[in-house]
Amino acid sequence: MPEVHPVIGFYSPSEDEVIWKTRIERDLPAFQFELLEYVEEKQFVKYALVWSPPNGLLNTFENLKAVFVLGAGVDALLRDPNLPSIPIVRLEDAGMAQQMAHYVIYGVLRFQRRFEEYEDFQIIKQWKPLVHIEPIEQFSVGVMGLGAIGLVVAEQVSRLGFPVLGWSTSPKEIDGIRTFYGEDGLVRFLAEARVVVDLLPLTAATEKLINRKFLNRMSADSFLINIGRGAHLLEDDLLEALEQRVIAGAMLDVFEQEPLPLENPLWNHPKVIVTPHVSGITMPQVALDQIISNIKLLESGGTPKALVDRKKGY
Amino acid sequence: MPEVHPVIGFYSPSEDEVIWKTRIERDLPAFQFELLEYVEEKQFVKYALVWSPPNGLLNTFENLKAVFVLGAGVDALLRDPNLPSIPIVRLEDAGMAQQMAHYVIYGVLRFQRRFEEYEDFQIIKQWKPLVHIEPIEQFSVGVMGLGAIGLVVAEQVSRLGFPVLGWSTSPKEIDGIRTFYGEDGLVRFLAEARVVVDLLPLTAATEKLINRKFLNRMSADSFLINIGRGAHLLEDDLLEALEQRVIAGAMLDVFEQEPLPLENPLWNHPKVIVTPHVSGITMPQVALDQIISNIKLLESGGTPKALVDRKKGY
Repeated sequence: MPEVHPVIGFYSPSEDEVIWKTRIERDLPAFQFELLEYVEEKQFVKYALVWSPPNGLLNTFENLKAVFVLGAGVDALLRDPNLPSIPIVRLEDAGMAQQMAHYVIYGVLRFQRRFEEYEDFQIIKQWKPLVHIEPIEQFSVGVMGLGAIGLVVAEQVSRLGFPVLGWSTSPKEIDGIRTFYGEDGLVRFLAEARVVVDLLPLTAATEKLINRKFLNRMSADSFLINIGRGAHLLEDDLLEALEQRVIAGAMLDVFEQEPLPLENPLWNHPKVIVTPHVSGITMPQVALDQIISNIKLLESGGTPKALVDRKKGY
Repeated sequence: MPEVHPVIGFYSPSEDEVIWKTRIERDLPAFQFELLEYVEEKQFVKYALVWSPPNGLLNTFENLKAVFVLGAGVDALLRDPNLPSIPIVRLEDAGMAQQMAHYVIYGVLRFQRRFEEYEDFQIIKQWKPLVHIEPIEQFSVGVMGLGAIGLVVAEQVSRLGFPVLGWSTSPKEIDGIRTFYGEDGLVRFLAEARVVVDLLPLTAATEKLINRKFLNRMSADSFLINIGRGAHLLEDDLLEALEQRVIAGAMLDVFEQEPLPLENPLWNHPKVIVTPHVSGITMPQVALDQIISNIKLLESGGTPKALVDRKKGY
């Protein structure tokens, strides 16, 4: 009778499993690595590593002890009505905060320095220096969501010399950043920020937050960067705001529906930059360091880091 | 007989003189502000504020005591065979270093994060995440020229997490940056840098430095950013290097001839970003602070800061 290993199961629609399998087998030799969809003896699956699993999949493993999410956001998983009542562990930061900070910096500089216009000039071979760029002192970057990622974004943008504003649902004090909170704070925050960066988690309070009312509170020369969640933004309201020059432009990495449908007018809107959910990509080796260390903690009776609070939703 | 004021004369093909006139008249009331081209009583011109004056213009003012250049580079001025033998003062940094750092950061992020490809995907409505971006630890940024501006660029790029290499003609030690110098150092520097940023002054030693030999020493997946001087780069050699995939791309702000002629193939080269000499624009108020303080120093018998060394050429 062959020896029975407990199983670490894996599910991801986009990740190549080889990297994950190799590290797990090397660093956790007591386990067997299998793809969750193809596991036959489901009772041996002890841990699951997942990104966007189909609803109900996790519930089929009766002895599952913990779920590791291969990203920072867990909202999709928490909407699974059949999600088993076991610990859910998310990634703390697998290189994602820095990547997202760089994404924001790229967008902010593109807007402030008008690089998009120079691209247009290059196409028509027009040599046209735009000498009246705005001093960065007047180009405040407002970060919504001041968790681990928001703090890194705020800090890196601030280091480049841009004034940084922060908004969160509850009051926070952060060195070098003017912070706002709640509904009243939001009005003042949006009036001042030249770039509004959405980094909020998806909760009942943040869903559809970026709607017509929100956009009307932004200034006419301001820009929106959404790297939070597509469900924060009412895309029709954004399109209307851009048409009516309520705001100046947007850079979007997340959408109501992903992949962004071909017929969605955001694709060819001249004031919108579309990227395919790449502002923060999980770096497998960094994620694996965290997951392996957390599985070792669990195996020795400890509590993993970055445990998700289901009530808060993150 | 009207009172005679000494004159501060101004010449710039691109700057609007009103800002300059207003500040000079306010802060140096003993002087009269005039446009150098239209001064009738040339003997009253004591100081000249210039950018790209025509050869010979400065020599027509017999009592000129000092020339202030409205930028960081003085090479064009020093080539004037009729340049009078008086002190030449350049701008130390009128917001330019930070602007140039931001320009470099924009370029580095555009290359490393492949934003250009996402722009192409957006045009054809293709949702295609490029999940294998290179970790920034492997994306070294090499800064050539470690003067006041080079140091700010190196520091700001380094703060974002990119490894920074530095090259200069003479040895320099800088915290947090691996430095190289001279011909031997250049070979190693170019082999390692994924982005080579030219920030050198224009001298006999740096003219045509970026030629076929130089480009062949760069790696095939590397990029060139030129914000130094157009005369550093042999544009034909760059075009050949791009055709033959000797390097991967370039972002150019300065050119052999400016404005870049319509027939120049750089304009519509798919691997080249062209901007019209805007990486560092003089911010008039910051420049005026420096110039006014230097004129006061000269008037009280002192020595101005940022005096140009004609032998060195900067």
